[in-house]
Amino acid sequence: MAGGTLTPPAGTEVRAPATPAERRAALRERIEAADLDALVVLDLADIRYLSGFTGSAGLLVLLADGADAFFTDFRYQTQVAAELDPAIDVRIESESLLKICHGFLAGRGASRVGFEREQLTYRAWSEWAEREPPALVPVEEWIEDLRMVKSAPEIAAIRKACGIADETFERILEEVRPGVTERELAARLELELAARGAEGASFETIVAFGERSALPHARPGPRELRPGDVVLFDFGAVADGYVSDMTRTIACGEPAAQMREVYTLVLNAQLAAIRGIRAGMAGPEADRLAREVIEAAGHGPRFGHSLGHGIGLEVHEAPRLGRKSADRLAAGMTVTIEPGVYLEGVGGVRIEDDALIGETGIELLTSAPKDQLIVL
Amino acid sequence: MAGGTLTPPAGTEVRAPATPAERRAALRERIEAADLDALVVLDLADIRYLSGFTGSAGLLVLLADGADAFFTDFRYQTQVAAELDPAIDVRIESESLLKICHGFLAGRGASRVGFEREQLTYRAWSEWAEREPPALVPVEEWIEDLRMVKSAPEIAAIRKACGIADETFERILEEVRPGVTERELAARLELELAARGAEGASFETIVAFGERSALPHARPGPRELRPGDVVLFDFGAVADGYVSDMTRTIACGEPAAQMREVYTLVLNAQLAAIRGIRAGMAGPEADRLAREVIEAAGHGPRFGHSLGHGIGLEVHEAPRLGRKSADRLAAGMTVTIEPGVYLEGVGGVRIEDDALIGETGIELLTSAPKDQLIVL
Repeated sequence: MAGGTLTPPAGTEVRAPATPAERRAALRERIEAADLDALVVLDLADIRYLSGFTGSAGLLVLLADGADAFFTDFRYQTQVAAELDPAIDVRIESESLLKICHGFLAGRGASRVGFEREQLTYRAWSEWAEREPPALVPVEEWIEDLRMVKSAPEIAAIRKACGIADETFERILEEVRPGVTERELAARLELELAARGAEGASFETIVAFGERSALPHARPGPRELRPGDVVLFDFGAVADGYVSDMTRTIACGEPAAQMREVYTLVLNAQLAAIRGIRAGMAGPEADRLAREVIEAAGHGPRFGHSLGHGIGLEVHEAPRLGRKSADRLAAGMTVTIEPGVYLEGVGGVRIEDDALIGETGIELLTSAPKDQLIVL
Repeated sequence: MAGGTLTPPAGTEVRAPATPAERRAALRERIEAADLDALVVLDLADIRYLSGFTGSAGLLVLLADGADAFFTDFRYQTQVAAELDPAIDVRIESESLLKICHGFLAGRGASRVGFEREQLTYRAWSEWAEREPPALVPVEEWIEDLRMVKSAPEIAAIRKACGIADETFERILEEVRPGVTERELAARLELELAARGAEGASFETIVAFGERSALPHARPGPRELRPGDVVLFDFGAVADGYVSDMTRTIACGEPAAQMREVYTLVLNAQLAAIRGIRAGMAGPEADRLAREVIEAAGHGPRFGHSLGHGIGLEVHEAPRLGRKSADRLAAGMTVTIEPGVYLEGVGGVRIEDDALIGETGIELLTSAPKDQLIVL
């Protein structure tokens, strides 16, 4: 059954800023409202979102007056010229980028400079504080908030990443046979992602056999597949910089009866969430939809993680769908829905899809088979 | 020519702490000398080094009195029981680990708690500061210093990771043919690493063709290989948690004469460093050995990065072999030696080996062919 038939299509037309310039303009309103002269951005996903730069070292500074600047080093000279929004002034530097940025802002007479509290280490903050002015002013989740609702091109990229994951899952089933190791299967899976156009895996692929599937974050190891094992795949693709994140649990030969029961339970929990989630709902309410199904079966303590999280340029971003989340869902957000039940020493089942939130329900973006336990 | 024949074998017997318990004991001396009650460790590589834990969420606290504790969440319950040094008290928690740690230390009457300046974000530091006591006291690079000199089992793991990289390079040459894309070659290379027992790639494999090889940190893309292109491979394996990091530059069909000249220059620069590096040398002196060869040929501005860096549990760690490094080399350190020259719009050459530093010279740990430009 394709996901789309299960739920109403995503509702409203969403208007999220779709270009780096529009995003910087949206942030500039907050910069001005907080009476700051500038905002320093160090997180690489944020930098990509706000400038187009995909490299792995750089510092972006947004100015209240609009004269934004980007500092990077020698290694990215060619790349930055090709990628960066031309409205941003680029400087290639060989000193510490924060030190350069401090001098740049001091030279412009800035007095109050914002930074995201998560993005500076204590070390970076204390070194700047010794050199004040300008003063550093902590802000919280401005860019994370902006990134939550996706624009049409972002949704298209995530859809593409989901399609690659779907196709890869169907292909990898052909490689599941007794004797193969977790590591071999994970490496093969990543090769198949690349063969379908993925820029890479969106995180280190998880392949876990038998009792190891009860470890929610097992790294693929030398364990060989044996008849009766369940096999848990948790993986995703990167496409145009955006990720997918999908989990499927199957079996190699008939598994213990207990695992079939757990599979049905986890699937029902996931379907309850898929049917119930909609815009306007708080993170804990979404989590509750699946958790109450699992708790009713007495397995509550064996579902120790959250129901899901946002996906986008990063594989874990806002909003959080969990018991302690303070986020509220809105149309245009893209999230995972991934309940799991883990029986220590026996095995675990997790089923995870990616979804686009609409006003009246969700649209599933992943559609690999899951409606009954696949037994190979 | 095998690396070993080029240089004297590593000298001295090195005595670096080889077990998590010995390492914690070494740190405890610094904790006591600084009049601290505890040291909070958040970096995952440091946690692995000091406890054996290989998961991706946890917090280790070393106490002056020796009652060390480790906090993690539900997901790692089984893993932590299997991996952790049994001398460490384990607690499975569902709240913020730093908050739990604060309560734990406050409850024990701690008054001064050390932390590595790089390991706390400003956010984490400021949240703790609001809850003082105990007071947080920044320390700098205590654990990084300890990790620089490797013990025999660590060197054995790095040697293994280097061997896997060597074998993979020879195998991947068979896949280099016109029409293949960078992405396909990178995915194949990672599959071949796994087939030889690697736990994974030590970083995202770089495969860059033609003019793209002049981007020192190119990500593999859809670019197809054309006759006359140079091909730059920069990759490594993880074995027993430790990494290798190797670069080779080859050509597919006869490249521009300029690229042959640059290859010879970079090779001569690398050989000068390999012959000259030894224990006792400062980081900038090591860098100088290769840089003066490249500068003498007028290509100094096109060698914009450092000569090398330490490798171990992480692919970039101390010591740094660069112009601004404050590190001094010692027997038992493992480092990369990787000069490069990049001609924008034309192509680049980098040649990188891993080496173990001994009293009287170095031992090369990677030995894939490099003594002349391989033209396929």
